[in-house]
Amino acid sequence: MSETNHVWRLRKRPIGEISNDVLSFAEEAIPEPNDGEFLIRLNYLSLDPTNRIWMSDMDQYMPPVELDDPMRGLVCGTVLKSRHPDYNEGMIVSGLGSWSDYQLGSPATMSPLGDTGPVAVVDAFSTLALVGPTAYFGLLDVGQPKAGETVVVSAAAGAVGSIVGQIAKIKGCHVVGLAGSDDKCAWINDDLGFDKAINYRTQNITQALVAACPNGIDVYFDNVGGDILDACLKLMNLKGRISTCGLISQYNATEAIGPANYAMILMQRLRVEGFIVLDYAERYPEAIAALSQWMAEGKIKVRTQVIDGLDNALETLKTLYTGENTGKLIIRVEDI
Amino acid sequence: MSETNHVWRLRKRPIGEISNDVLSFAEEAIPEPNDGEFLIRLNYLSLDPTNRIWMSDMDQYMPPVELDDPMRGLVCGTVLKSRHPDYNEGMIVSGLGSWSDYQLGSPATMSPLGDTGPVAVVDAFSTLALVGPTAYFGLLDVGQPKAGETVVVSAAAGAVGSIVGQIAKIKGCHVVGLAGSDDKCAWINDDLGFDKAINYRTQNITQALVAACPNGIDVYFDNVGGDILDACLKLMNLKGRISTCGLISQYNATEAIGPANYAMILMQRLRVEGFIVLDYAERYPEAIAALSQWMAEGKIKVRTQVIDGLDNALETLKTLYTGENTGKLIIRVEDI
Repeated sequence: MSETNHVWRLRKRPIGEISNDVLSFAEEAIPEPNDGEFLIRLNYLSLDPTNRIWMSDMDQYMPPVELDDPMRGLVCGTVLKSRHPDYNEGMIVSGLGSWSDYQLGSPATMSPLGDTGPVAVVDAFSTLALVGPTAYFGLLDVGQPKAGETVVVSAAAGAVGSIVGQIAKIKGCHVVGLAGSDDKCAWINDDLGFDKAINYRTQNITQALVAACPNGIDVYFDNVGGDILDACLKLMNLKGRISTCGLISQYNATEAIGPANYAMILMQRLRVEGFIVLDYAERYPEAIAALSQWMAEGKIKVRTQVIDGLDNALETLKTLYTGENTGKLIIRVEDI
Repeated sequence: MSETNHVWRLRKRPIGEISNDVLSFAEEAIPEPNDGEFLIRLNYLSLDPTNRIWMSDMDQYMPPVELDDPMRGLVCGTVLKSRHPDYNEGMIVSGLGSWSDYQLGSPATMSPLGDTGPVAVVDAFSTLALVGPTAYFGLLDVGQPKAGETVVVSAAAGAVGSIVGQIAKIKGCHVVGLAGSDDKCAWINDDLGFDKAINYRTQNITQALVAACPNGIDVYFDNVGGDILDACLKLMNLKGRISTCGLISQYNATEAIGPANYAMILMQRLRVEGFIVLDYAERYPEAIAALSQWMAEGKIKVRTQVIDGLDNALETLKTLYTGENTGKLIIRVEDI
């Protein structure tokens, strides 16, 4: 255990692309837990598109990070000191914490990761703690795909999108994914079994979607908003469903632009529904059980991109918005 | 029975506001029914915001009217000649027909109006044939308001909106309506019992909504899209619902603009759902029974604006998009 703590703090709200002065990174004292709290050593930090939302003061689903507060993140760590009877030293916990080597937790924010069986902690944390349940509930509960229907997913080589497409295949759907490079397209097509992959940077999105979806679109799992949302809206079938998981194209935008084809919601009697996986917390065990089984059977493959060092967190986060990363981004501070 | 037929035909698709050369109005021969068809004399023609959609070639929920075809409309008429065994001379029918004195119908497009009891045919046609079920299913099935929740409706002095607000009051909701004149606001407030009326032409929409909805908005019944939709999106409560019935602000627009606050769908986990009342045809009896009872009990009041003469149809239709009309617009050709 190092005796030095390092903390990323939010210093200004990003405007447009995330700049380096948005966060500061500095040495600080290791905090002491009060009654009911515990101190953890950070093992893994999850980097997710939603981090950009928390940095901003746009309308959002929980309070934004306050200026000068530690940056918020989904963390996995080990309890070092505890003043809570249910959390013992050495216990592995995950939940909402901060970008810092040492930090305080409580049952309100973190819960035991539990026995991960044959699955490595880093894989359990990266796939099962957040992105897997997001894909599971967002596709199945919100999108409600039926066998034979066409499911389109954007950011399809991303952590959530890649799982969405594989679940849709398990459910017997025709699955089309959009990703930002030929390598990503090859991965979701060849390795993950999508029926069709579209490189949205090099192809005409609408033409490619028309060709890939001869029967129209029944479910669009939206991670991005923007032009891809508009193109999908135009092709939605009667009573189609749009599961709104993210709008990453808008997070760095200085001016929000709504979808020009919004009227398709009326014309095709669509259901557009936003969701946040945290709303499904009580049903996580259902998702984790299904996902674990599919992973064990080889029906769901995941790619985790592990970057070492908390000091690399900001530079690595930026790659989420430029499309450079593939799969789930994890910062590793200390392996378990 | 006049021996002359007059027919409105679509000559060009409107761009922006509806101009006089979009339709032509001329004498034509009275058509003869083929086997399985019947000839009707038009009694009442319903003018509805959706007429503008049918004139255009925008994406829509049924094929647009073809150029040079008679203009489509919801009609109520009397059978004059029949070559269908179930439709006898003198029977009153309603359904999708055209803007013409004499026209052919079939069971695919028109059905008997049935016994309207103590309700005048014009009121039964204007309220129960389309707008009443639209309000009923759009609010209750799609919006699913609970007692104590806040329901906002736009075009609240319109045919559908005025009924939506009254049903929401029956269901115990806090009801706020937006309308385009002080007279309309006074009507929905004083006569219809809305909790609050907002004149969207003279008031700051967002400020007025904030004041009128101290607990936020749970259900927004959208007839208009545009700025009012954006203002409502900003104030929607967690798990709020937007029932998309119409987007009249967009119909005359030369360029569609999506709602800038679309991201609220994600942040507040909203459900936005479009519907067309025709999808509920099998359940009309449920709506008609409820609406008839509420009307008999005085809990729902309707205002029908009857204009005489088919030749006035185009000029009268325009008032729907300028906000000049109040309540349901009906062209009367010949009373029943």
